[in-house]
Amino acid sequence: MSLRPALLACALALLCQPISAGEPARYRSAQEIIDAAPAEAWRTPDPANLLYLELESGRVVIELAPQFAPGHVANIRTLAREHFWDGLSIYRSQDNFVVQFGDPDGDDPAKARPLGTAKKKLPAEFHRASAGLRFDRLPDADGWAPQVGFVDGFPVGRDPKAGTTWLAHCYGTLGAGRSNEADSSIGAELYVVDGQSPRQLDDNITVVGRVIQGMERLSVIPRGPAPMGFYEKPELRTTIKAIKLASEVPEAERTPLQLLRTDSKAFAEATEARRNRRDDFYKRPAGHIDLCNVPLPVRAGVP
Amino acid sequence: MSLRPALLACALALLCQPISAGEPARYRSAQEIIDAAPAEAWRTPDPANLLYLELESGRVVIELAPQFAPGHVANIRTLAREHFWDGLSIYRSQDNFVVQFGDPDGDDPAKARPLGTAKKKLPAEFHRASAGLRFDRLPDADGWAPQVGFVDGFPVGRDPKAGTTWLAHCYGTLGAGRSNEADSSIGAELYVVDGQSPRQLDDNITVVGRVIQGMERLSVIPRGPAPMGFYEKPELRTTIKAIKLASEVPEAERTPLQLLRTDSKAFAEATEARRNRRDDFYKRPAGHIDLCNVPLPVRAGVP
Repeated sequence: MSLRPALLACALALLCQPISAGEPARYRSAQEIIDAAPAEAWRTPDPANLLYLELESGRVVIELAPQFAPGHVANIRTLAREHFWDGLSIYRSQDNFVVQFGDPDGDDPAKARPLGTAKKKLPAEFHRASAGLRFDRLPDADGWAPQVGFVDGFPVGRDPKAGTTWLAHCYGTLGAGRSNEADSSIGAELYVVDGQSPRQLDDNITVVGRVIQGMERLSVIPRGPAPMGFYEKPELRTTIKAIKLASEVPEAERTPLQLLRTDSKAFAEATEARRNRRDDFYKRPAGHIDLCNVPLPVRAGVP
Repeated sequence: MSLRPALLACALALLCQPISAGEPARYRSAQEIIDAAPAEAWRTPDPANLLYLELESGRVVIELAPQFAPGHVANIRTLAREHFWDGLSIYRSQDNFVVQFGDPDGDDPAKARPLGTAKKKLPAEFHRASAGLRFDRLPDADGWAPQVGFVDGFPVGRDPKAGTTWLAHCYGTLGAGRSNEADSSIGAELYVVDGQSPRQLDDNITVVGRVIQGMERLSVIPRGPAPMGFYEKPELRTTIKAIKLASEVPEAERTPLQLLRTDSKAFAEATEARRNRRDDFYKRPAGHIDLCNVPLPVRAGVP
């Protein structure tokens, strides 16, 4: 049998590349570029913007985006500080779409958990003015938005005519569930995308952040009954031990990590290396990369 | 607490729509269109093209695409008939990418399972001539291929200049793992996409089919160690009870299902209803749909 898992690993994981030392103009894989990125290409997220979702299986680390959803992020900080989610659950898991969590009894006034000092009503924050944002544009065509790229490590869509920018729904995106009214989300009910990017939701819902580590703890949660994945039986829900702000956690208990700056040369070069793969595996470089196919590298490390 | 799970369900699952009886020109949701599709809009797949991947958690149903990969599909049929995969395993699960299965000892001549009468070498079948295929094109822009659409229920890319068509890597796509050589796959090692569509693999690898039911049995398989998801410990692998051709299974044990024809009016109308959602939830219809965001409806039912 000629297929060797080691080779298949390289082939399918797209992570290992032939290295021919001494060739000055040789192709460098995205991983090689990232590994060689200088210290200043990495950023340490602000602990006040990091949310730790603690599950039995471990910690999920989320970066919040107050520059896009200041009202929702402020409310989420309040809810976390007041332990709103502790003991609540992930009550929905729909295949190729989202997991959703918060208070499954939120619609029952007799059983709903009190919101404490958090606001009960917030304006929608679907998009914001592009002014004041550093935008690193992808040159690639996109069907969902006039322009796409990155702002502060987040994938975004952008409309130059309207002068607006919004967070895109990619794998790992954290959004605020709402009902039909645009202003019906307050950040207490949240969902994380774990399937093909549902970009039709872009600029239609308030996005509040992105999972940056531990996504695999959410994506393997058994799916609830079709079509929407809500668990009928409470015992099948996944309990949330706690959701905490990293800034409220003792330093020794924080998860030290850094993210590759999306305004760095290394990020642009790694993206180009993926857009046109020139290793021994690829027979036809795509010449394209989709916004939600661009990995946003994270590394363990103390600031 | 104003957020009601029932409303959130509608909002996020995008499946329930307001019904205003009596308005002749009212918007119909994709689900309403599909529910009203006539019998001839549905097709019953050929049992000789259906593969049953039997896991402890249940059955995964795959439709093979012999019109795109005749050599590989013939080999897969032989391997299934000769019980090649029975007792082997899913030995890789990489988050936001693929699960991969076959013989984890395939690289060890002393331990590899014999291939029986299956061919040990096959030509690559990355694409085929477009001639002779009914192509239902999506009008939407795509960055990965000059044209995209559907052939016989499969999402495809198409190059009118080269006159070629290939199966696209979407959620649920089944491909034949290979090493660096284009002709190094024979269909014994297979992978299923369970993350954001890795379309850079299109026309770079032989795609052999698509999961049409039971995808959630694969997508929840715990991820193996990063970065590539291969299990180091054999006991963590998921055992394959059997992979069988439906045509070799007694009729009473088959899974009766039908697929919405991608050349039907209902399919085109449902896709348009998703491209421009006009229900009470959406504030801004996308005006676009991505190839891999188009659901390919399946229903239970006896032919």
